[in-house]
Amino acid sequence: MSAVTRRDTYTPQTLLEVAVEVFNERGYDGTSMEHLSRAAGISKSSIYHHVRGKEELLRRSVSHALDGLFAVLEEPAAREGRAVERLEHVVRRTAEVLMERLPYVTLLLRVRGNTATERWALERRREFDQRVAALLKQAAADGDLRAEVDARLATRLLFGMINSIVEWYRPQRGDSAAAEEVADAVVTMAFAGLRRHGRP
Amino acid sequence: MSAVTRRDTYTPQTLLEVAVEVFNERGYDGTSMEHLSRAAGISKSSIYHHVRGKEELLRRSVSHALDGLFAVLEEPAAREGRAVERLEHVVRRTAEVLMERLPYVTLLLRVRGNTATERWALERRREFDQRVAALLKQAAADGDLRAEVDARLATRLLFGMINSIVEWYRPQRGDSAAAEEVADAVVTMAFAGLRRHGRP
Repeated sequence: MSAVTRRDTYTPQTLLEVAVEVFNERGYDGTSMEHLSRAAGISKSSIYHHVRGKEELLRRSVSHALDGLFAVLEEPAAREGRAVERLEHVVRRTAEVLMERLPYVTLLLRVRGNTATERWALERRREFDQRVAALLKQAAADGDLRAEVDARLATRLLFGMINSIVEWYRPQRGDSAAAEEVADAVVTMAFAGLRRHGRP
Repeated sequence: MSAVTRRDTYTPQTLLEVAVEVFNERGYDGTSMEHLSRAAGISKSSIYHHVRGKEELLRRSVSHALDGLFAVLEEPAAREGRAVERLEHVVRRTAEVLMERLPYVTLLLRVRGNTATERWALERRREFDQRVAALLKQAAADGDLRAEVDARLATRLLFGMINSIVEWYRPQRGDSAAAEEVADAVVTMAFAGLRRHGRP
């Protein structure tokens, strides 16, 4: 009877938090159920009570990243108005989601494509990039972006800058001011550039 | 006598080209002398004729990247004139060196610090970043950069953008026009921003 009434302190959510950390540390390929069991401090059979295996944990982890990113595209400011304004909103919010869901987006960016779940994640990520590239192309067609930078190249450099945040951003607990400063810097640099105008 | 007169087609340079490729494919830790020997199509003892071991090949590889990067800082346009112009020159040339020495810089960016050579490479890379950060701080002090972007943050985003080129740039043989277009785009985006001014 005690087994039924005992409160299991591991929820699918806390298990996911441990799993994404271990995946980022060891790499998905290098992680076994044994590693996950040790990191979570629960038995493998307890993990199997929650999920079918490590690939399900990977799918849930990258889904959390992808859901956050795709939700940005559905925000009113991403859907209404001039393309350049929508693009700026999407760039800012993409950087914000990356910082809010840092370990999940980090994992997403490291996915390489050895399993069906990884290939699905890569495909979804490519889809997101293409949605942003289309917005950038529209802004260029509206005459709101510099004509001399190719849209495909600009998209790559933009994501290069945003995605690099995972390499060094280490948030303090509840430090939303720092995240705001980073998102502001990304938007300023990408859209207005570092150079101050009207100077020699 | 034939062993003496036989022309060894492997020079230290061609061996290095094979080694950097294998290191990038398997990771430095995952590469054995056996892997290098197989990739080069020569015996391990032939490799030992050229170098003491794989760590020497790593040191030579990352040195080729670092020498190219540090040479940029010694160019006249990086040493004379307003800091913002020197910074712009360094950003352009850093992107160019990265593309010219693509596999070597790729390896440098992946170094993690498990051996003395890796720690030395990380230290040198940090030194290069600090030299660029100092230039950026000087340009900001001159009033030539937007005051609202923190110099440390700007340096990180700048390198994030430049270094991301290794993820997707795949040169065609002798395609210097493409490299030029990428370098131009980096400079335009970083200094002038994507948004066209004087538009609604």
